[in-house]
Amino acid sequence: MASVPSFWSPRIAALEPYVPGEQPRIPGLVKLNTNENPFAPSPRAITAIERAAAQGLERYPDPESVALREAIGAHDGLRPEQVFVGNGSDEVLAHAFFAFFQQAEPLLIPDVTYSFYRVYAQLYGIDCELVPVDAGLRIDVEAMASRAARGCAGIVIANPNAPTGIGLPLAAIEGLLASCPDRVVLVDEAYVDFGGESAVPLIDRHPNLLVVHTLSKSRSLAGLRVGFACGQASLVDALQRVKNSFNSYPLDRLASAGAIASIEDQAWFDKTRLDIIDIREGLTLQLEDLGFEVLPSQANFLFVHHPAHDAATLAAALRERAVLVRHFRQPRIAQYLRISIGTRDQCSALVDALVRILG
Amino acid sequence: MASVPSFWSPRIAALEPYVPGEQPRIPGLVKLNTNENPFAPSPRAITAIERAAAQGLERYPDPESVALREAIGAHDGLRPEQVFVGNGSDEVLAHAFFAFFQQAEPLLIPDVTYSFYRVYAQLYGIDCELVPVDAGLRIDVEAMASRAARGCAGIVIANPNAPTGIGLPLAAIEGLLASCPDRVVLVDEAYVDFGGESAVPLIDRHPNLLVVHTLSKSRSLAGLRVGFACGQASLVDALQRVKNSFNSYPLDRLASAGAIASIEDQAWFDKTRLDIIDIREGLTLQLEDLGFEVLPSQANFLFVHHPAHDAATLAAALRERAVLVRHFRQPRIAQYLRISIGTRDQCSALVDALVRILG
Repeated sequence: MASVPSFWSPRIAALEPYVPGEQPRIPGLVKLNTNENPFAPSPRAITAIERAAAQGLERYPDPESVALREAIGAHDGLRPEQVFVGNGSDEVLAHAFFAFFQQAEPLLIPDVTYSFYRVYAQLYGIDCELVPVDAGLRIDVEAMASRAARGCAGIVIANPNAPTGIGLPLAAIEGLLASCPDRVVLVDEAYVDFGGESAVPLIDRHPNLLVVHTLSKSRSLAGLRVGFACGQASLVDALQRVKNSFNSYPLDRLASAGAIASIEDQAWFDKTRLDIIDIREGLTLQLEDLGFEVLPSQANFLFVHHPAHDAATLAAALRERAVLVRHFRQPRIAQYLRISIGTRDQCSALVDALVRILG
Repeated sequence: MASVPSFWSPRIAALEPYVPGEQPRIPGLVKLNTNENPFAPSPRAITAIERAAAQGLERYPDPESVALREAIGAHDGLRPEQVFVGNGSDEVLAHAFFAFFQQAEPLLIPDVTYSFYRVYAQLYGIDCELVPVDAGLRIDVEAMASRAARGCAGIVIANPNAPTGIGLPLAAIEGLLASCPDRVVLVDEAYVDFGGESAVPLIDRHPNLLVVHTLSKSRSLAGLRVGFACGQASLVDALQRVKNSFNSYPLDRLASAGAIASIEDQAWFDKTRLDIIDIREGLTLQLEDLGFEVLPSQANFLFVHHPAHDAATLAAALRERAVLVRHFRQPRIAQYLRISIGTRDQCSALVDALVRILG
């Protein structure tokens, strides 16, 4: 690495930025590596975007995104002041780390989870303590709660967890909430719409609960960048303070218009997510027939391991056949592949390729 | 203020967030308070957005926004690795403060300038030293350079400055660059296209120069949220490290498509910005006829003062007549109004209202 120029703030050179799944432009690619939704977003979202574009873009959007927060609130049974919106859930998460977890004690996260959490912590100088998942790669709620009770900056989990796909029941979330009543428990529900149990109904009883959602997965809007957080007004107030110290207008007019229309189209939402669940269940059986161990998934991806084949080798062999899945060179999960649920055709292509690779 | 809940990171309660100009929904409002462009963006931008929406939004955008950085580079004579893009120039500025100005010495900014600079500094715990503008509200380049030579975290100026509209010549920028060769000089050129002199041609000779632009003003795309920074690759590298530790995909597919089409439409760009300049010069004369002192503006707004009328009172009287201008309750400029350049009709409405108010 070249010497670091003196222009950088001292902490910049030490950052280890998040590396998203690759977005290659390979013709005919079966792209099952970034947990996108293979189905199009609601046509009403596209229409709303076209209408907003035609209405003009020379004016700033509403800095408070009131209409979108009202739409989310109406959908989730919350008041607008209990909803915070951002430019993708990654931005929402970044602001939440800044707003709540810059504390004297360490932040608790599972050792196997969305790897961006550790990056946010590093960005803001937050000490992270990794709580090991159990031998089945499940979040160890008891270990986490007992560690939290000794003092922490907060807890961050994904539910269902990534990249495992395994969900926790609400009783487990309540246990975590009770273990650190003075610190925020952030539950990242990016994948919850594919069969998980949302903690949003717990918000009224738990002032330390922040639930983060994205429109990138179950709403098929990864290309539009909209995410949100739900919690009691005091938590949303903190997020607004950070947002208003960072960027007054994080959501452009088109993103807000598309997001509102998407959230109001319940029928499209239900159809696509139920399709994904159905395809997931079918693919699980096919992969098991090929000898894979498949973790029980409540997400739009599967986390799989083959006892007789090296995961990195399998990922490379699939890539040669224009099928992209995600492999993480990380402790404990280096022998697993994460496979996003595609269309039925895409999943068939994956299975066909695996049949040939496995001989 | 209610007591601060224990959930907040300690620094959150002390933040004093930026307050953008209000965006009220008053029918028939003449809105001259947030420096938006009164003209529509390039029709090619709208077409490009509609095409991008129709092509699908279920996939993530390119995290590196290569096509947009190439388009900006082609327009400004830079390589893509010398261009950093973000979700509005406010986000670009926030990342730049994080990447370059977290240093032991204080950051130097003028005492009269875009008030968000102090907010970013506060957000990231950066000590700011305010260098007073001179009696004519011009940035005091000599005072700034001599202070910088004694050691600083960097320099941030807007050129033309906001809210004064006064521009600096390139020789002055070069003086600042020479005064702190080991620290970044950030030149925010949000308004440069309305008659200022851009520092972009200095980039190849000055490794410590970062120039920030926005598409919100001269490109009429405030509603789309696109901004960018230009500098040598090492500076862009630092910004990328911060961005990739914060949000992998800050620009959505529609924003990138619209921005590229806008930048490629040089004819529309030139027509609208020259129109604004022409309207500005006419309005200047009309306001001077009404007794206002008008600072020399190279921006899409005027900063004016009436020797016989209180500025806050004038702003309130204009608001009663559905004309919105911006008044800042700040030391040194509390007797000024900032008036964005609108269409000819909007400026006429402003002048008519002032004629009635001034009697």
